[in-house]
Amino acid sequence: MITQKEITLQGYSRGYHLITSLITSHLGELPDRGLLHVHVKHTSAGITLNENADPSVRADFETFLDDLIPENYSGFTHTLEGLDDMPAHLKASIIGQTITVPITNGMLNLGTWQGIYFCEFRNRGGSRRLVLTVYS
Amino acid sequence: MITQKEITLQGYSRGYHLITSLITSHLGELPDRGLLHVHVKHTSAGITLNENADPSVRADFETFLDDLIPENYSGFTHTLEGLDDMPAHLKASIIGQTITVPITNGMLNLGTWQGIYFCEFRNRGGSRRLVLTVYS
Amino acid sequence: MITQKEITLQGYSRGYHLITSLITSHLGELPDRGLLHVHVKHTSAGITLNENADPSVRADFETFLDDLIPENYSGFTHTLEGLDDMPAHLKASIIGQTITVPITNGMLNLGTWQGIYFCEFRNRGGSRRLVLTVYS
Repeated sequence: MITQKEITLQGYSRGYHLITSLITSHLGELPDRGLLHVHVKHTSAGITLNENADPSVRADFETFLDDLIPENYSGFTHTLEGLDDMPAHLKASIIGQTITVPITNGMLNLGTWQGIYFCEFRNRGGSRRLVLTVYS
Repeated sequence: MITQKEITLQGYSRGYHLITSLITSHLGELPDRGLLHVHVKHTSAGITLNENADPSVRADFETFLDDLIPENYSGFTHTLEGLDDMPAHLKASIIGQTITVPITNGMLNLGTWQGIYFCEFRNRGGSRRLVLTVYS
Repeated sequence: MITQKEITLQGYSRGYHLITSLITSHLGELPDRGLLHVHVKHTSAGITLNENADPSVRADFETFLDDLIPENYSGFTHTLEGLDDMPAHLKASIIGQTITVPITNGMLNLGTWQGIYFCEFRNRGGSRRLVLTVYS
């Protein structure tokens, strides 16, 4: 069985945001066993799993990845949409735009320290659409 | 229900290629709701979602990632298969060799600007095998 | 149909380890067609597909990624859990903590040269939990 829902995220600033409980709040009762697939319908935002406790991890994600993929990289030719655009495209493919998470006993079967990060790579990304698909 | 098909890509040059319509041309009628999984059966090619409009994005992917993972990196020991081989393996794991995309109302539910990129990381990758699995 | 199993990996040293046959040894008879999803329940370890033959590929993964995401990067603020911790979090999101692999004719439908790598990013990661989900 498959259930599917499209949701909108509003007002996330550039950076890495913990959205595990936001995601689960949009899902009804979860099946006993299954998988949750989350898809970000954009090419300059991403989604990943990482540490759900200390916010310094998310801050360090921002610092390090901005340094790894700098806005002033001289080789970029796709610059018309702003200096933050091409780095955002690269981050989206390096971090990923989808995740799949197991569901066990009616709950997301994440590790103790795992949470879902929504990654806004643009300065002003605006509202973002996500597709949630539950398989059981 | 699961349907599965294996296809061959021919003659893609090194670089990033938009293959959304090629993929959908190999799929029959899509289900109302489901997921499409695409798997690249190689360790020096990849697949990802990114901008489907301006080809300069794909050119900048090539420039930036070749710079990030350079062929002349002095630490590589796996060099017998050519200087482009070890960077290709790293890119395959950083970009990824599979994607999963939601299907809604009989269509791939991608964002307006999202397309499927086939990423050929070798100079002469030759023919490449992909497995397409549709879940519904 | 969905079957699911949680397994524990013990004693993997920091680095990249080929675990394809370990994974399949934990699965019963595989379906004719389906997908295998593997989820690592940790934020400082990862899983990916890559070359299953020459161990120098795995050694070069270690060398290159340690260089790309160095422990002594001056911008890290999340340092209380050890210098290897924050690089491990970043690697986990760049390499990924899940894979999905097609199953065809009762076998994992990997390419000839593809194997499953378990990636231990910590110096002393200890035991690690994985969730295996088979869809058919």
